[in-house]
Amino acid sequence: MEKWDGNEGTSAFHMPEWMIQFADQKQEFNKRPTKIGRRSLSRSISQSSTDSYSSAASYTDSSDDETSPRDKQQKNSKGNSDFCVKNIKQAEFGRREIEIAEQEMPALMALRKRAQGEKPLAGAKIVGCTHITAQTAVLMETLGALGAQCRWAACNIYSTLNEVAAALAENGFPVFAWKGESEDDFWWCIDRCVNVEGWQPNMILDDGGDLTHWIYKKYPNMFKKIKGIVEESVTGVHRLYQLSKAGKLCVPAMNVNDSVTKQKFDNLYCCRESILDGLKRTTDMMFGGKQVVVCGYGEVGKGCCAALKAMGSIVYVTEIDPICALQACMDGFRLVKLNEVIRQVDIVITCTGNKNVVTREHLDRMKNSCIVCNMGHSNTEIDVASLRTPELTWERVRSQVDHVIWPDGKRIVLLAEGRLLNLSCSTVPTFVLSITATTQALALIELYNAPEGRYKQDVYLLPKKMDEYVASLHLPTFDAHLTELTDEQAKYLGLNKNGPFKPNYYRY
Amino acid sequence: MEKWDGNEGTSAFHMPEWMIQFADQKQEFNKRPTKIGRRSLSRSISQSSTDSYSSAASYTDSSDDETSPRDKQQKNSKGNSDFCVKNIKQAEFGRREIEIAEQEMPALMALRKRAQGEKPLAGAKIVGCTHITAQTAVLMETLGALGAQCRWAACNIYSTLNEVAAALAENGFPVFAWKGESEDDFWWCIDRCVNVEGWQPNMILDDGGDLTHWIYKKYPNMFKKIKGIVEESVTGVHRLYQLSKAGKLCVPAMNVNDSVTKQKFDNLYCCRESILDGLKRTTDMMFGGKQVVVCGYGEVGKGCCAALKAMGSIVYVTEIDPICALQACMDGFRLVKLNEVIRQVDIVITCTGNKNVVTREHLDRMKNSCIVCNMGHSNTEIDVASLRTPELTWERVRSQVDHVIWPDGKRIVLLAEGRLLNLSCSTVPTFVLSITATTQALALIELYNAPEGRYKQDVYLLPKKMDEYVASLHLPTFDAHLTELTDEQAKYLGLNKNGPFKPNYYRY
Amino acid sequence: MEKWDGNEGTSAFHMPEWMIQFADQKQEFNKRPTKIGRRSLSRSISQSSTDSYSSAASYTDSSDDETSPRDKQQKNSKGNSDFCVKNIKQAEFGRREIEIAEQEMPALMALRKRAQGEKPLAGAKIVGCTHITAQTAVLMETLGALGAQCRWAACNIYSTLNEVAAALAENGFPVFAWKGESEDDFWWCIDRCVNVEGWQPNMILDDGGDLTHWIYKKYPNMFKKIKGIVEESVTGVHRLYQLSKAGKLCVPAMNVNDSVTKQKFDNLYCCRESILDGLKRTTDMMFGGKQVVVCGYGEVGKGCCAALKAMGSIVYVTEIDPICALQACMDGFRLVKLNEVIRQVDIVITCTGNKNVVTREHLDRMKNSCIVCNMGHSNTEIDVASLRTPELTWERVRSQVDHVIWPDGKRIVLLAEGRLLNLSCSTVPTFVLSITATTQALALIELYNAPEGRYKQDVYLLPKKMDEYVASLHLPTFDAHLTELTDEQAKYLGLNKNGPFKPNYYRY
Amino acid sequence: MEKWDGNEGTSAFHMPEWMIQFADQKQEFNKRPTKIGRRSLSRSISQSSTDSYSSAASYTDSSDDETSPRDKQQKNSKGNSDFCVKNIKQAEFGRREIEIAEQEMPALMALRKRAQGEKPLAGAKIVGCTHITAQTAVLMETLGALGAQCRWAACNIYSTLNEVAAALAENGFPVFAWKGESEDDFWWCIDRCVNVEGWQPNMILDDGGDLTHWIYKKYPNMFKKIKGIVEESVTGVHRLYQLSKAGKLCVPAMNVNDSVTKQKFDNLYCCRESILDGLKRTTDMMFGGKQVVVCGYGEVGKGCCAALKAMGSIVYVTEIDPICALQACMDGFRLVKLNEVIRQVDIVITCTGNKNVVTREHLDRMKNSCIVCNMGHSNTEIDVASLRTPELTWERVRSQVDHVIWPDGKRIVLLAEGRLLNLSCSTVPTFVLSITATTQALALIELYNAPEGRYKQDVYLLPKKMDEYVASLHLPTFDAHLTELTDEQAKYLGLNKNGPFKPNYYRY
Repeated sequence: MEKWDGNEGTSAFHMPEWMIQFADQKQEFNKRPTKIGRRSLSRSISQSSTDSYSSAASYTDSSDDETSPRDKQQKNSKGNSDFCVKNIKQAEFGRREIEIAEQEMPALMALRKRAQGEKPLAGAKIVGCTHITAQTAVLMETLGALGAQCRWAACNIYSTLNEVAAALAENGFPVFAWKGESEDDFWWCIDRCVNVEGWQPNMILDDGGDLTHWIYKKYPNMFKKIKGIVEESVTGVHRLYQLSKAGKLCVPAMNVNDSVTKQKFDNLYCCRESILDGLKRTTDMMFGGKQVVVCGYGEVGKGCCAALKAMGSIVYVTEIDPICALQACMDGFRLVKLNEVIRQVDIVITCTGNKNVVTREHLDRMKNSCIVCNMGHSNTEIDVASLRTPELTWERVRSQVDHVIWPDGKRIVLLAEGRLLNLSCSTVPTFVLSITATTQALALIELYNAPEGRYKQDVYLLPKKMDEYVASLHLPTFDAHLTELTDEQAKYLGLNKNGPFKPNYYRY
Repeated sequence: MEKWDGNEGTSAFHMPEWMIQFADQKQEFNKRPTKIGRRSLSRSISQSSTDSYSSAASYTDSSDDETSPRDKQQKNSKGNSDFCVKNIKQAEFGRREIEIAEQEMPALMALRKRAQGEKPLAGAKIVGCTHITAQTAVLMETLGALGAQCRWAACNIYSTLNEVAAALAENGFPVFAWKGESEDDFWWCIDRCVNVEGWQPNMILDDGGDLTHWIYKKYPNMFKKIKGIVEESVTGVHRLYQLSKAGKLCVPAMNVNDSVTKQKFDNLYCCRESILDGLKRTTDMMFGGKQVVVCGYGEVGKGCCAALKAMGSIVYVTEIDPICALQACMDGFRLVKLNEVIRQVDIVITCTGNKNVVTREHLDRMKNSCIVCNMGHSNTEIDVASLRTPELTWERVRSQVDHVIWPDGKRIVLLAEGRLLNLSCSTVPTFVLSITATTQALALIELYNAPEGRYKQDVYLLPKKMDEYVASLHLPTFDAHLTELTDEQAKYLGLNKNGPFKPNYYRY
Repeated sequence: MEKWDGNEGTSAFHMPEWMIQFADQKQEFNKRPTKIGRRSLSRSISQSSTDSYSSAASYTDSSDDETSPRDKQQKNSKGNSDFCVKNIKQAEFGRREIEIAEQEMPALMALRKRAQGEKPLAGAKIVGCTHITAQTAVLMETLGALGAQCRWAACNIYSTLNEVAAALAENGFPVFAWKGESEDDFWWCIDRCVNVEGWQPNMILDDGGDLTHWIYKKYPNMFKKIKGIVEESVTGVHRLYQLSKAGKLCVPAMNVNDSVTKQKFDNLYCCRESILDGLKRTTDMMFGGKQVVVCGYGEVGKGCCAALKAMGSIVYVTEIDPICALQACMDGFRLVKLNEVIRQVDIVITCTGNKNVVTREHLDRMKNSCIVCNMGHSNTEIDVASLRTPELTWERVRSQVDHVIWPDGKRIVLLAEGRLLNLSCSTVPTFVLSITATTQALALIELYNAPEGRYKQDVYLLPKKMDEYVASLHLPTFDAHLTELTDEQAKYLGLNKNGPFKPNYYRY
Repeated sequence: MEKWDGNEGTSAFHMPEWMIQFADQKQEFNKRPTKIGRRSLSRSISQSSTDSYSSAASYTDSSDDETSPRDKQQKNSKGNSDFCVKNIKQAEFGRREIEIAEQEMPALMALRKRAQGEKPLAGAKIVGCTHITAQTAVLMETLGALGAQCRWAACNIYSTLNEVAAALAENGFPVFAWKGESEDDFWWCIDRCVNVEGWQPNMILDDGGDLTHWIYKKYPNMFKKIKGIVEESVTGVHRLYQLSKAGKLCVPAMNVNDSVTKQKFDNLYCCRESILDGLKRTTDMMFGGKQVVVCGYGEVGKGCCAALKAMGSIVYVTEIDPICALQACMDGFRLVKLNEVIRQVDIVITCTGNKNVVTREHLDRMKNSCIVCNMGHSNTEIDVASLRTPELTWERVRSQVDHVIWPDGKRIVLLAEGRLLNLSCSTVPTFVLSITATTQALALIELYNAPEGRYKQDVYLLPKKMDEYVASLHLPTFDAHLTELTDEQAKYLGLNKNGPFKPNYYRY
């Protein structure tokens, strides 16, 4: 059985400060309606995110209706009222969004087809807490098709697409979520998912750990019936490792954040495209000939550098790790210290996961019109706080775009106030979300069906074979034809014909 | 003196049908407020163009004020009322847009600086008819700084940025333009520019030929004082060649459309970026692994192919010209007939300048969710008319995005109704507009200052030396350092140290 | 009829000094056996060059036989003795080389097939003077298959492949050429081709202009029967323009050097590959991470830069022409002056066509182990002469590789003594030679069959339609499928369905 | 202490058949002088291989001297005779090669400098068995400079550079090796290294495991004083894991084959260049427009695909692993089964590590002139044996290039008889060898200086920190400037400022 760094995860792994801080921050996200969390950027939201002066009002807005959903009496067309959404009448709009998403989530649709005979989740009672978007809806309805009963809340007070929530409610899913929840609303919604007469969850799908936290705190006895937790976020996974380390994890948990496929898509391939998209939508700049410094040459940095180089930018890289640094060299990038190029570059992009990579001193030395943005973790990489000083003028020129003006007239173009550019100013392609959602579905199936004893009260990685399965479900999208090993070849390689095909340490 | 294909242009060149048709179509643009012309995509407009459901209302809209500008009495802060714009009070917003544009138009700013001593356009009275955008404003104010007096109308009834027009009027420029002119308004504005008591133009800057046409028709005597015409558009240039051919061109004209720098930037470099931008903003698709067929491997096709290949798409090319076809092969693209790949591709992009490249038959054979768009000329490349049949359902899913649905449920995603994707769904970077505007300014200077007899009543290309000068003015943007020939080297090469550096036939 | 810059070519075009010098130099090539001319790098030579352990030597070598071919009595197997080659017994080896070349020259083979019915060169008596390689042999035998009689000499005293010459002689072609001719031999061979009892040429195929020169000088009356000259080289073309300018050109001549297809392949596409090949074969260096400066961003420079960038080098560009400079910027290269980077780069590559681009001063400042080479014109770009001073030590470390050692121990790695790297140290792919040879064949057919009056006593470019035909003949190699215009589309575009498809000024 | 997959390596890891077979094959290499082993391609060999006209032969050749080195009496200039090489008089040539190599092995030179004070290998008595090349010589002399005494034999009977061996002997190193040893010579040389009066090794550096095997077999007691084994090859590492598994490994061993830096350079970066080099040197083909299928998308396949795509080839990929398959898609390659494209491709390249990937059936279906070569493991990937049938004719057209001819005249171009192209037909850049050699040196230092108990009788990976150190020693080559963490940042990330910077599972 594949288990990932169990010792490190549960005992030896030193928790870096940023993770802890990030966890705190995540909490804040839920409290402050002005911040946007990880998965908030669905199709419709991205639209409003690129829309500087309007509020995408007519469609997603509900400003015409100030009544709290908690105070409304709503029923779907079948008379069911076990849900709480902004406006059930928006269901039709939401359904269209879901249908569009279905077309780009072939793997989940394939799972539905395969599940027409057997129902691998028959009997499963899944409580979920994720962003509520069209893609989540496809996941949720897939879980339903696989035999599960689901109840769902939002993991972020701001990211819910009201139309999609309405469509799910109309389709009979008990959904408790709307855009613009208060903190009290947030926990109320979660509670409505788990605290149900005559229904008790046996599986948890969490994104951020809040749902898990709530059950731990309020209904610890529920864990007796729970077969496992599937957690997607960095923060949530971290919390699980902490629980495990403290000996308090009482069910098996699966970390789907670190599966190969998800990592490569969320980072390398997705950022390769979103760096261009984010910069274009915010600044309409031309990439050709621009000098860019990318801080950090991990997967995200690699993606950013490759894309910008391909578009004719001249790219410099900074790194602290000599191995990644050598990769940058071999890939054709000058490896510099930030100070060496800070005066000459047109764009500064951070992808380090570190803090204060771009300091006030750097910002002071940048040339006029230099664009500064963050593709890395959180909002710590650029020391934005240092720019909140009286001598600098801030001018909001578009949504997500600030000009910070020095006394001598120099302007720095700061994107998304130093928060994640790809989340704030571009969209996450449905295809990437499809990979994540499929991974979640398979993790739920695996934990739900695993024979007694396969998983203990620990945090597991998705078995490599399942990772491979997720990949294989997405190959038809590309009309890609996999070769099969012959018996003779499988024997020669010492492999099972159906995989797994690589040792655990394989780097891809 | 460098003169381009004079004979061909004025006598021997066979006028292709599409040019004539395009000219007609251009007229239509001016009449129908729902269509957008060539240069309409400034910073602000692009914003509304990416905004599917809202109308970017609060900022650019003036729907709250239904009074025609022609019926208003407006004065700028200096008491001047020789202009007609939507709302002079929007001047401050417009000024900000102009200031932003100035930062990306270094060449014009450099011309201003150099003109502080001499005023190469002192005495010039320029009447202009172009899109009224922030970039045009920078051009206009540069012409002013060079000594010229200007009067300006819009070349398109829809593309004027009202705030920018207001800012220009506030700054003392007689501007007659607003967004949403009627056809009558359109000609009225042009007339207000030329039909002035005590002021007669001696230079024309035109984009589309309407201004030139108006003067020919109404005030032919004005040409006695006019030193030349500078024309930017394909259509306008075509009209000038027709006039020349017919012996009716009574002043020198300069075709700035075909200068090297402008062509490369408008086509190869600009499309390399805008194909990605246009597809992303409309569909949020992921490029990696997608199969794409690009019809046509001219400059536009080359740009599209390079960008998509770099982003991980698998690109096929169709061509009619064996030389371009061989280039496509050597550049690593499978050269196919459209029919060979039409069933398998995810995206179809036309860049041919031709008509009916994508026929109904092709559309019938495309797979579900195939995206179809046009980066070429006009709106003829995709036979969109053939899709307006009863058995097909059209569904507008976003602004500029239609799903055309076949009876069996297959959907084709049609972008911008087959019109130009890069104009409808992405932005033209200011840097590209800077090159065009600088070319126009230099052409005006050249024609205005040329000694008697250098230019006859014919259509000229910008001298190569000026083309090189435009390029050199844009090099500082890239902190690019040009090498100078030594005397010995110049002699060896048989070149003047200051250029021109290449023979006319050089292909770059 | 398409005629290219006739006026410029024959009257107005100022002859740059380097062309004249180059012409002189070319003469030298023929005199000095230690230098290698343009087309010396055929398959067989490269073969032995890649062959460390085998003994290709045994069959290319003839050092065991010091008798001059002029003193030998040789007959081919049919008893024919109208030829003069090194050793007729090597014919079989040569035939194999020719057969291999045939497989990569599909266009000529296609011409042979099409000529099975009609013989477009029936009656043609062609005298040729080119490099004698397997590819030339395929051309010559194609001309024969098309109906022509041929007599052939070598245009370079060193480049003849003796086995190929033997194979041609065995097949009945009067060939007069061997490797290592003296200058006297050289002219004797040419004379044997033209000074024949009962046979007089009516077409000339020349590469360098020596054959043309010889006939002008010795047998001017021959021109009465000669229908035209086809000339391939820069030098030869230059001489023809000079003759034309002086009014001394007495037959039409066709400049095949400047056809689009040939130019793109000889420069951009060929150099893209040969820069890597040349550097690898001489130095075994790794490209990844290396800093390279490429002087000149014409077609050759563009090819070099693209290849090195793709292999992970960091490339800087120097340019004198602001338009090419701007292209370099947009393509993602830092544009610098050589002095700015000379201390830091690992490789210096010249592609300017200029002289003294790399001076002794530059060489003094280069860092240890810096590689210096020339991909441009001639051997003038690097001031190699300046390195022949007493304080510097030259050490030949390999063929074509010298270490020049400074007193402090610094070594510069000079390749090919500053001559053309791609000719000295890599091979020209047969495919490129195929394009050239096909162009020559078509030019001969065109001139031979042109109706009276189509061509005057001037220098012409290959008609664009033929250029397109050359391209189309090479498309099957790539299994490339050209699209045909419909009648409706041809009408719309104002084009003939069979081309030409572009105006003359089109830049590709 | 970092230990890699200890459980898997020593107990659970199933030994694939090919590894065992490969080990056998390796033995064969040593017996058959016509085969070339892994590291045979040093500078000198490649030098002569690129040297068509010079006579590198004269100094590498020893055909003039048929006396076995074992029968010669040789002394170096200091009178020492404790060595056995071909010809001590060749020392000067070898020294030059070593000096050239030193310039490209900056990391070892840096180690020498740092060791001027302390001698980390003082007291070490290292017996080595590797390829004897200029690069090995730099390693050996570095070990000497670090304080070690060394004795050395060749790991391959064919790969020794006699001049280099002579130079080492001249410099006082007891080297026992020459090119063209018999099997008996091979073991005799090894024995001469270990079976010495008054000298007993305490460290082993092995490449292939033969030396280790010999000591196990003949002098097992020696292991009492041996502190550790450093092994580089796949085969040798495999043998060590077998010993460990069998409980017979009696000293710590370090597997330097699987360090990150070595893997990336040996595979991805090196193959990216060597695929082009190998194909060019053997076939002089043009890459542009060629259709290529690459079997396998691991690191080697990724390198080959990237290079060929960059050169304008159209690349198809086959894969068995869905994750690698999805990477291929996202990187822009059509994923196919070999059968789908076998009829159309111009080149087939295997990089799978598998057997019979290209079968006789595939070979029968390839088109004329298709090139077939292997970049993967061993010589099993192409079923070359199946081509040894009477109806097929083999024609050796160059060294390493065979034409296999079908009865209908179809020719397949088979490179290196299906053995590794990059080893047979291109060179391994010194820079790559530098990384390997540095890794070996650091592994020796680590094992020699490790405190008691740090390493047990098991197989270890190089600690990540040392892997990072190897990388950092190579950064100056690229003038690359690493950024250092501030204290605050290190704390935030939970990292030591000096690394290691990544968790063990990081994929780079």
